[in-house]
Amino acid sequence: MRLPGHVIAFTLSLVAASAAPAGTANAAAPFTPEQLAQARAIRERALGDDTGYELLRSLTSRVGPRSAGSPGDPRAVAWALEQLKELGFQNVHSEPVTVPHWIRGECDAQLVSPWPQPLAAAALGGSVATPESGVEAEVVRATTLDELSQGDTTRFAGRIVFFAGRMERTRDGSGYGRAVAVRGRGAAEAAKRGALAVVIRSVGTDRNRLPHTGAMRFEATDRKIPAVAISNPDADLLDDQLAAGQPVRMRLRVTSQWADSARSANVIGEIPGRERPREVVVLGAHLDSWDLGTGAHDDGAGVAIMSAAAHLIGEAKLRPRRTIRVVLFANEEFGLSGARTYARDHAGEVSQHVFGMESDLGAFAPLGLRSHVLPDRLPAIRAMQGLLAPLGVEYRGNDASGDADVGQLGQLGVPVCDLDTDASEYFDLHHTANDTFDKVDPLLLRRNVACYAVLAWLAADLEGGLGRAPKGRETGR
Amino acid sequence: MRLPGHVIAFTLSLVAASAAPAGTANAAAPFTPEQLAQARAIRERALGDDTGYELLRSLTSRVGPRSAGSPGDPRAVAWALEQLKELGFQNVHSEPVTVPHWIRGECDAQLVSPWPQPLAAAALGGSVATPESGVEAEVVRATTLDELSQGDTTRFAGRIVFFAGRMERTRDGSGYGRAVAVRGRGAAEAAKRGALAVVIRSVGTDRNRLPHTGAMRFEATDRKIPAVAISNPDADLLDDQLAAGQPVRMRLRVTSQWADSARSANVIGEIPGRERPREVVVLGAHLDSWDLGTGAHDDGAGVAIMSAAAHLIGEAKLRPRRTIRVVLFANEEFGLSGARTYARDHAGEVSQHVFGMESDLGAFAPLGLRSHVLPDRLPAIRAMQGLLAPLGVEYRGNDASGDADVGQLGQLGVPVCDLDTDASEYFDLHHTANDTFDKVDPLLLRRNVACYAVLAWLAADLEGGLGRAPKGRETGR
Repeated sequence: MRLPGHVIAFTLSLVAASAAPAGTANAAAPFTPEQLAQARAIRERALGDDTGYELLRSLTSRVGPRSAGSPGDPRAVAWALEQLKELGFQNVHSEPVTVPHWIRGECDAQLVSPWPQPLAAAALGGSVATPESGVEAEVVRATTLDELSQGDTTRFAGRIVFFAGRMERTRDGSGYGRAVAVRGRGAAEAAKRGALAVVIRSVGTDRNRLPHTGAMRFEATDRKIPAVAISNPDADLLDDQLAAGQPVRMRLRVTSQWADSARSANVIGEIPGRERPREVVVLGAHLDSWDLGTGAHDDGAGVAIMSAAAHLIGEAKLRPRRTIRVVLFANEEFGLSGARTYARDHAGEVSQHVFGMESDLGAFAPLGLRSHVLPDRLPAIRAMQGLLAPLGVEYRGNDASGDADVGQLGQLGVPVCDLDTDASEYFDLHHTANDTFDKVDPLLLRRNVACYAVLAWLAADLEGGLGRAPKGRETGR
Repeated sequence: MRLPGHVIAFTLSLVAASAAPAGTANAAAPFTPEQLAQARAIRERALGDDTGYELLRSLTSRVGPRSAGSPGDPRAVAWALEQLKELGFQNVHSEPVTVPHWIRGECDAQLVSPWPQPLAAAALGGSVATPESGVEAEVVRATTLDELSQGDTTRFAGRIVFFAGRMERTRDGSGYGRAVAVRGRGAAEAAKRGALAVVIRSVGTDRNRLPHTGAMRFEATDRKIPAVAISNPDADLLDDQLAAGQPVRMRLRVTSQWADSARSANVIGEIPGRERPREVVVLGAHLDSWDLGTGAHDDGAGVAIMSAAAHLIGEAKLRPRRTIRVVLFANEEFGLSGARTYARDHAGEVSQHVFGMESDLGAFAPLGLRSHVLPDRLPAIRAMQGLLAPLGVEYRGNDASGDADVGQLGQLGVPVCDLDTDASEYFDLHHTANDTFDKVDPLLLRRNVACYAVLAWLAADLEGGLGRAPKGRETGR
């Protein structure tokens, strides 16, 4: 019988662990049998526990949309403080963060000719408004940013540029990286060629009439034009009309605006370590969401998973040596305000941040673990992964980033790991009205909790710790 | 090897056909080998032909939403006249129909307390408006119309009644029949108990934030109150908040209104019969759609399938004895105006309507054939079904209705048949913004065209015809 790789790794780690004398550890067996047994007990407990799922139900039902600066933002902060206290966390507090405040307003998009039809559209985050009466212009099609520099570049002047490229569905989410460039910079680049507005095919893999919003950005020197996303079926319709060869005219009306910066907060709670409480393992997720849905997968799931994982560690018989700190970051979506503020405010204690992880890819099946540690700590990482192998998690390399928020700490030398989850469905829902609680599978959420609880417990209890991160990252990913 | 029933039936029909002398037919073999060969040739041609699919692309792209009385209604009529002419139909014309004209307007629904959230909502067709400033009231939950008469019936007075029952997904669409009663009569019945408005969980099986509209009705004596549908995820959210046990308050604002009746038309085109051109086989579908989507499955698919089926018969080497008449009915959705007008205007020729069929359940896999004919014509029906058996169609009984539109003729004694298709996914899309062209599988659409073309050709060519329909219908369905 040929065993899958992760089963072999798991078996080896058990062998290695049991070869070490009880109560000690070495490079070949970084964890004692007692540590591994404790981690396994936490894992099994997590697989039968719905604390995370019920937290997510509460967040989506009682707070719902919570984009930076919106009325839901302070409600989310209050909710998080209350929930972490109820779950028995220590040192529960908020740390102020200044966040940008963009207001969506209304967005109407219509095909005017040759065949009038309404379109399901949403402004991209950061879009400016059209004039009050809207804009109407002929549509010019492009697929990539590069195309704006090719051929007769005057063809965009006075037009609405339609970025028609379709995001590819992949298990690792790599299709997103390839498709998202037009969302971020399409409007600014089209504006340089005189365009009046930009319409993008939603950066998403579903075929629902629900546009995907997301941040776009202008630099200070950019001319600012409105930017909206239309749903995939609407982009198909527009492509069908364009394919007929007649000029296609569109009318857009957007009332988005910027308001003054607002006050939000990172919310923090701890499970204090039994020996070195000032050394912390950070479990991060972001508390803000986009406004169209209730932020169930993005990133209510992360909030719920990390809070539940730390809570389970707090409930376990033996607390780990070091502190587990849950950090629920403000405003990830619109420029990482919370993560940057945290990194700045805690710069003096960065050496006490011994490890970090972030959950921000929904509650889908965990598939792989990546780390970013010095080579001599890889045996510990492999032993940690060994306990996740029965859950389907393979080891994938030493090129972890820590994701958007915790990655800010990773850049300061904090070792991190990334738990890769199956992203196949995530981009059906991401940044749409459809990102709601009913889309979350409670068993998959439990599996995520189990993974992070095991990783956090072992990292926090490892004798000698995980050191600092290497300079730079492997580029294998 | 145990053959599936439909394969046995197919084999038997071939045996029966080949046992008859060439060029004749009898009760055991109602069709000649030549007739069956011709029908098979049409079937095979249909399975490789995208006339129907491209018609549907054109209708959804160039007309789109086309509810009764809306600007899309006359555009759909003009489109249909042009397309039928282009496809070579004869006697292409429209017949005027007076249709009701309801205007959707805006619909805002918000949970106000205990936890404010916006809801994805749409007015039901026929809803009246709220006062300009909206209504705000506590929500009272019910699941069925019967519940309104149970217990303390004063509990609905001054409240918003939420019908929370969920439609069950079934292959035969039977879940719809059970769930839809609250849509049609919920508002009128709640109004009798003093309710201010009604909100229903969408009558649909998906979990998208896209509400399902559909007709509701008031009798002349009913007090009229606003009625809206919220999407399944929003109904889940409302149920979650209600489950917390605190009073839930909702705010609704609806601006729907009735306008004067409008002029629309049934659109008709024919493939004239070679021997008895005044005798017609009717292929029906409805040209109108709901306004939220582009009416791809409901009922653009029927329009495309029936038009393509008749067109393929017109292109075949041998035309059938009798005429194939495609009737694209006006306003099915809001009270069958087109079908009733057709039945009234053609009452004098009802005996020349020798057979009827309607396609109005989307372009999904054909699974079964039902008939409504006198017992002595069942061998012909079974022989017709035999040619569909390789496409997966079994015979299901003599209880066909002719569906909503053609059923008006069925009630006048015209024999009919129903092609049952797999309705599992239909009610994910039905009456929502998601009913768009991208949801249609071209191969399944072809298969529907093949079925109706075979049925129509054989019914139109059958020596002696299919007689009249029995009185009443079997109740086996």
